[in-house]
Amino acid sequence: MTGTAAIIGGGVIGGGWAARFLLNGWDVALCDPDPEAERKMAEMMANARHALPMLYDVAMPDEGRLRHARTIADAVGTADFIQESVPERLDLKHRVLAEIEAAARTDVVIGSSTSGFKPSELQQGARRPERVLVTHPFNPVYLLPVVELVPSPANSEAAVAAAGAVLRSIGMHPLQVRKEIDAHIADRLLEAVWREALWLIKDGVATTREIDDVIRYGFGLRWAQMGLFETYRIAGGEAGMRHFIEQFGPCLSWPWTKLTDVPDLTDDLINMIADQSDAQSGALSIRALERLRDDNLVGILRSLKARDAAAGALLNAHQATMARPVQSTDGPITTLRRVVPVDWADYNGHMNESRYGQVYSDAADEVMRRVGADAGYVAGGMSYFTVDCRIRFLAETLSGETIFVHSRVLEGKGKKLRLFSEMFRDDGTLLSTGEQVLIHVDLATRRACEPAEGVRRNVEALAAAHAGLARPRSVM
Amino acid sequence: MTGTAAIIGGGVIGGGWAARFLLNGWDVALCDPDPEAERKMAEMMANARHALPMLYDVAMPDEGRLRHARTIADAVGTADFIQESVPERLDLKHRVLAEIEAAARTDVVIGSSTSGFKPSELQQGARRPERVLVTHPFNPVYLLPVVELVPSPANSEAAVAAAGAVLRSIGMHPLQVRKEIDAHIADRLLEAVWREALWLIKDGVATTREIDDVIRYGFGLRWAQMGLFETYRIAGGEAGMRHFIEQFGPCLSWPWTKLTDVPDLTDDLINMIADQSDAQSGALSIRALERLRDDNLVGILRSLKARDAAAGALLNAHQATMARPVQSTDGPITTLRRVVPVDWADYNGHMNESRYGQVYSDAADEVMRRVGADAGYVAGGMSYFTVDCRIRFLAETLSGETIFVHSRVLEGKGKKLRLFSEMFRDDGTLLSTGEQVLIHVDLATRRACEPAEGVRRNVEALAAAHAGLARPRSVM
Repeated sequence: MTGTAAIIGGGVIGGGWAARFLLNGWDVALCDPDPEAERKMAEMMANARHALPMLYDVAMPDEGRLRHARTIADAVGTADFIQESVPERLDLKHRVLAEIEAAARTDVVIGSSTSGFKPSELQQGARRPERVLVTHPFNPVYLLPVVELVPSPANSEAAVAAAGAVLRSIGMHPLQVRKEIDAHIADRLLEAVWREALWLIKDGVATTREIDDVIRYGFGLRWAQMGLFETYRIAGGEAGMRHFIEQFGPCLSWPWTKLTDVPDLTDDLINMIADQSDAQSGALSIRALERLRDDNLVGILRSLKARDAAAGALLNAHQATMARPVQSTDGPITTLRRVVPVDWADYNGHMNESRYGQVYSDAADEVMRRVGADAGYVAGGMSYFTVDCRIRFLAETLSGETIFVHSRVLEGKGKKLRLFSEMFRDDGTLLSTGEQVLIHVDLATRRACEPAEGVRRNVEALAAAHAGLARPRSVM
Repeated sequence: MTGTAAIIGGGVIGGGWAARFLLNGWDVALCDPDPEAERKMAEMMANARHALPMLYDVAMPDEGRLRHARTIADAVGTADFIQESVPERLDLKHRVLAEIEAAARTDVVIGSSTSGFKPSELQQGARRPERVLVTHPFNPVYLLPVVELVPSPANSEAAVAAAGAVLRSIGMHPLQVRKEIDAHIADRLLEAVWREALWLIKDGVATTREIDDVIRYGFGLRWAQMGLFETYRIAGGEAGMRHFIEQFGPCLSWPWTKLTDVPDLTDDLINMIADQSDAQSGALSIRALERLRDDNLVGILRSLKARDAAAGALLNAHQATMARPVQSTDGPITTLRRVVPVDWADYNGHMNESRYGQVYSDAADEVMRRVGADAGYVAGGMSYFTVDCRIRFLAETLSGETIFVHSRVLEGKGKKLRLFSEMFRDDGTLLSTGEQVLIHVDLATRRACEPAEGVRRNVEALAAAHAGLARPRSVM
């Protein structure tokens, strides 16, 4: 489904909506009185164009057309969906909604990005209250999928269904809220954290950085893949959710926080939570949930590690303290020893062919370090690029297995470096062979050039040392 | 640094500590009166051995030795570090700490996993209070890096430094809390969320699943890489943190939650927060922070997508609605069209060689779908495995570029399928060629076998159609 979306208000949230619609093939008419609206929207689109298409392993639809409209009437006239994202003042929202209704088709749904107001408040004075509802997204709107879809009793079922269909068509997850309430669901939770965080800062217990670190190195990682209740269900251990509440429920009456109005943990409330948790997660044992959680965390942490960001930077610093493989001086170099991570397996249940390429790429990096073409050398503007490789797959490799790689220099002269590597399971089984041709390059010109003198000498010495080894079975 | 750690209490938290120490090469003496302690610890170790080593791209140290001790005295006698993780009752903790102190070396630090008690409370009645402190971890302890390291004024600097060194040696991030306070930092935030979530359930606004979904599809993803304040700094847009507080500060006095004791947003408090936020994040512009955040989110979401978990499952469902490339009936097949994601780049600033392998692996998957060897066929027990591949790298590929792949069947007879693919930038530049030999296999026996009749016919038809195409430049 595509069409034309009118976006009223082009700030961080409205601009994010516009970007998500455009990249999913919708045309967008954007109305914002800010004289800098066009520049800001262009910057938002640059961010969104960079990020959103990377999430998909296929091409996204052709981008829709963006039009900056002078007036609300001009923006909404031909719209198939209207999203309002003006500042959080009810009088302003009422004025904008009246302008929208005066010019929009009568069948078009109007969603509001409000994080605080109830739909019944927005509907006050509306001509057709049945089509005005809350569609509250999360920043960055072009990347985060959830939208709180909040109707009031005045909304028509058709309007709720239509809003849901539009949101799903642009890759979002409309979470329909059962009862309208100030601030919906997420912002009530966020507001609670915000208030507590303000107390921690005011009382000198923690700084903004320390609060952020305890989140992003701790429970924030859990919440990226399971929420509060599924996480606590696991924490309850084999006894599950009921046990968790019974164990930690009493803490609610302790004077831990400044915030003191706490619901009584009656049997009814405990049963309600335990039953809902069973319905949500009961199909899986605690052990199965633990494994799911751990595999998700491994994937998330490894993605951060690859970017040296957040908790991933901690992992890299710790990894740097670990000993490298001990090297013999005559035989092939042990260039790698590691466990195959879960994110390397594919639908065939074994390590995907591309990850063999990664193993040989990492092995080549270790050879480079050995000859002095290390991180400092790369920072200095020179490196080796692979121009040709041949990989043979001799036996399956499974995630969790420990593998190691032996590498040797087949040829090392001038700009050219030819490597041959063998990958083994730690029981000695030969799993694969890889042969690579690398060319030494100048990173400024991106063209081949001679290596620095020290590197050249080291490469030649390794090539000479490995010349006496038995010729490998498979060469290109 | 390694040594012997005594772990007192072997539940979800104590067992997690033991696993992290063991996998980092420490010996562990574990004491828990639960008759099932050995079984539970073995299951914990199975989980931890599966997950933690996958985080590192090198081999971890040799695993330490685990010993189940009958008594606390036996466990702590030779320990270089002691971690207490018994249930949250102060009288019990005092009793256990007294037993520990009676048998431990006098120079050894004793950390407590307590999530609620202050170190000064634990120190009541201690012989050497200066070495008893809080080291509060997060479940799963073997994966999440942060530890709240909370001293009281009675602690010696040497004890705090020693605890920090031990924790860093096992890959953790000790976050030293400035002032002791009930529940430290993280559990105050978690407790605030927990209370608000209980109200939402009690009032029938949301179920446990809905609360979890709004977290893991929304702000939980943000918090896996930036915390509360850095995220809000970005939300403030170009005007930054002060603007954010001024915009949303007033919400604090609104009756949004049941929790009403809110600090006054005085100029002093606003300045304190803005100054701390500047110190934390001010070195980067809002645009730079946005790009960091987005790249982190892309990496996290892609890791979940690869596992079809949490928000990643939403992405896969949305991707399935996107149109596949239109196919001509005579020329090569367009097997892929996509954007190169940020997690595919390496330290040379271009797409890593292993990701070319992924492109050709994905291209081969598309050929398999075309001939009927699709997901259903794989689920039915047959597939193709790659046994040989050759990749030539002709030009650099950068993240953010759109690429497409043309593939043809060079040979398709019986069990054997030989493919030749060319990868182009969308401006038509040839970036790489890849040639793969695939063998049809029975997934039960993992051995070669003939394909099903329909697949065989389709492969032969494609091979015949492609036989008329010009012979590619590079063949193995």
